Amino acid sequence: MSDVTKADLHARIQTSFEKQGLMKLLGAELLEVERGRVVIGLRARPELSQQHGFMHAGATGAIADSAGGYAALTMFPPGAEVLSVEYKLNLLAPSAGDRAEAVAKVVRAGRTLTVCTLEVYSLKGEGPTEERKLVALGQQTLYCVQPKDDESR
Amino acid sequence: MSDVTKADLHARIQTSFEKQGLMKLLGAELLEVERGRVVIGLRARPELSQQHGFMHAGATGAIADSAGGYAALTMFPPGAEVLSVEYKLNLLAPSAGDRAEAVAKVVRAGRTLTVCTLEVYSLKGEGPTEERKLVALGQQTLYCVQPKDDESR
Amino acid sequence: MSDVTKADLHARIQTSFEKQGLMKLLGAELLEVERGRVVIGLRARPELSQQHGFMHAGATGAIADSAGGYAALTMFPPGAEVLSVEYKLNLLAPSAGDRAEAVAKVVRAGRTLTVCTLEVYSLKGEGPTEERKLVALGQQTLYCVQPKDDESR
Amino acid sequence: MSDVTKADLHARIQTSFEKQGLMKLLGAELLEVERGRVVIGLRARPELSQQHGFMHAGATGAIADSAGGYAALTMFPPGAEVLSVEYKLNLLAPSAGDRAEAVAKVVRAGRTLTVCTLEVYSLKGEGPTEERKLVALGQQTLYCVQPKDDESR
Repeated sequence: MSDVTKADLHARIQTSFEKQGLMKLLGAELLEVERGRVVIGLRARPELSQQHGFMHAGATGAIADSAGGYAALTMFPPGAEVLSVEYKLNLLAPSAGDRAEAVAKVVRAGRTLTVCTLEVYSLKGEGPTEERKLVALGQQTLYCVQPKDDESR
Repeated sequence: MSDVTKADLHARIQTSFEKQGLMKLLGAELLEVERGRVVIGLRARPELSQQHGFMHAGATGAIADSAGGYAALTMFPPGAEVLSVEYKLNLLAPSAGDRAEAVAKVVRAGRTLTVCTLEVYSLKGEGPTEERKLVALGQQTLYCVQPKDDESR
Repeated sequence: MSDVTKADLHARIQTSFEKQGLMKLLGAELLEVERGRVVIGLRARPELSQQHGFMHAGATGAIADSAGGYAALTMFPPGAEVLSVEYKLNLLAPSAGDRAEAVAKVVRAGRTLTVCTLEVYSLKGEGPTEERKLVALGQQTLYCVQPKDDESR
Repeated sequence: MSDVTKADLHARIQTSFEKQGLMKLLGAELLEVERGRVVIGLRARPELSQQHGFMHAGATGAIADSAGGYAALTMFPPGAEVLSVEYKLNLLAPSAGDRAEAVAKVVRAGRTLTVCTLEVYSLKGEGPTEERKLVALGQQTLYCVQPKDDESR
């Protein structure tokens, strides 16, 4: 993919991302966009915690769900929309770092249905001493709403 | 269950719920608590939206995950803690109402593992004209951290 | 639904069921068919066991998957076919009875996508002393291949 | 891992595998065993088919479930047993080849709970012209029954 196309793709996803009130409320950032792969980041703060002070699985789940939807959208024709059909997450460890990253990758791109894998990492520190731990692993099915479709799945 | 016990149970869950920064940030409310069943409510507002203006699946997923955790916790011995092992949600329809309710019910209560069903409803209007639509359906596995356990699942 | 229509529906599902070599190999029986609900039964025998002598989750999973597919098919237009998109099963207890029943119910019937709940019961004894225990609980997404569709989801 | 240890591990898993009546009925073979990874193979034949002649998802699901259980068991202490808690499979394409392989890998090994990824490939032909296609992708949670445990999860 040329850099120009890649920048276009990023801009297209960014436009939709900014319309998601929830991503703004959480403080999530669109970090990486390429064809079939999207990364969303989220800094830990008390407002995102569960009862033990770690990042709430609901917050990590929300960025994982969004990352998967956008990874699918990068494969769709212009004008198409994406709906999340279902997702499943295994929570492997507490999200105890100072930020989280959700990495979504398309593993099956179909005309109607797309399947993504979802990985959520918890990160601590920066640069050479950065620690990166897989804290959640998931799978998601997405539906492509064609430009002229009536949205009734 | 006597009313006194039920009030105790509600207070116990409420105490933990108030420690969840994310539930406060989202604006979620603990609506009902009984043994094996918890309901959490969430009013729609622009800050909770996805790109089409409906409530983000990440927000409905977050209250569903919390409701399931607390439904499990109502079955646990005093002092025990709950961890979410995994959950799966099917998103059946857009959450287009003015509020959502996540209803979690315990279907298997084990010493170590508890399984809940998760239902999320979208509600519109009040009183006799209230409309109530099932928008998400899920299953969740929870882990009971015994009071003296070392939390290493 | 009139008895005639119900008999037609049963015959239509039975015809497809008999083409499934696996259901015959396992010894599964189509027990009940109505619009949006199908029950498949399976008698325990050593050939269906896992290493501890209980019925293998692969066998209960197979009848649950088939029951869900056929429950969805009862909602589809004539000539349409069904594909299983995904399913998830929580195994709640060993299947220790002398037979199992998978009960699938449609909870969302869409033009393209249908969602079913899956319940597997283990049964012991007959008549008034019959014991019936829920041993697995699941959710499944099915895809409707329209009569003239090209099957490329 | 030394070759001796690896052979021991294979023998241990093979002993359990041969007690699974269902694996024999299906015609499944234990192909590879190493610490944290197990591969089970299954040749297509009419007895394993669904209604369109492809391998039934119940058959591929059964070998995937078994492979995951055994991959987890390779990580457990001697004398421990494995129970499948839940699994989820996305069916990506029909299993149209002449055989299938289920590859299970441990991604989280805990004292009580282990999580595996499940991949099912459909294969056609042999040697340099062999085609290998991913037809199902899943996640599974397994429970370790400690040697002296009472099996009540």
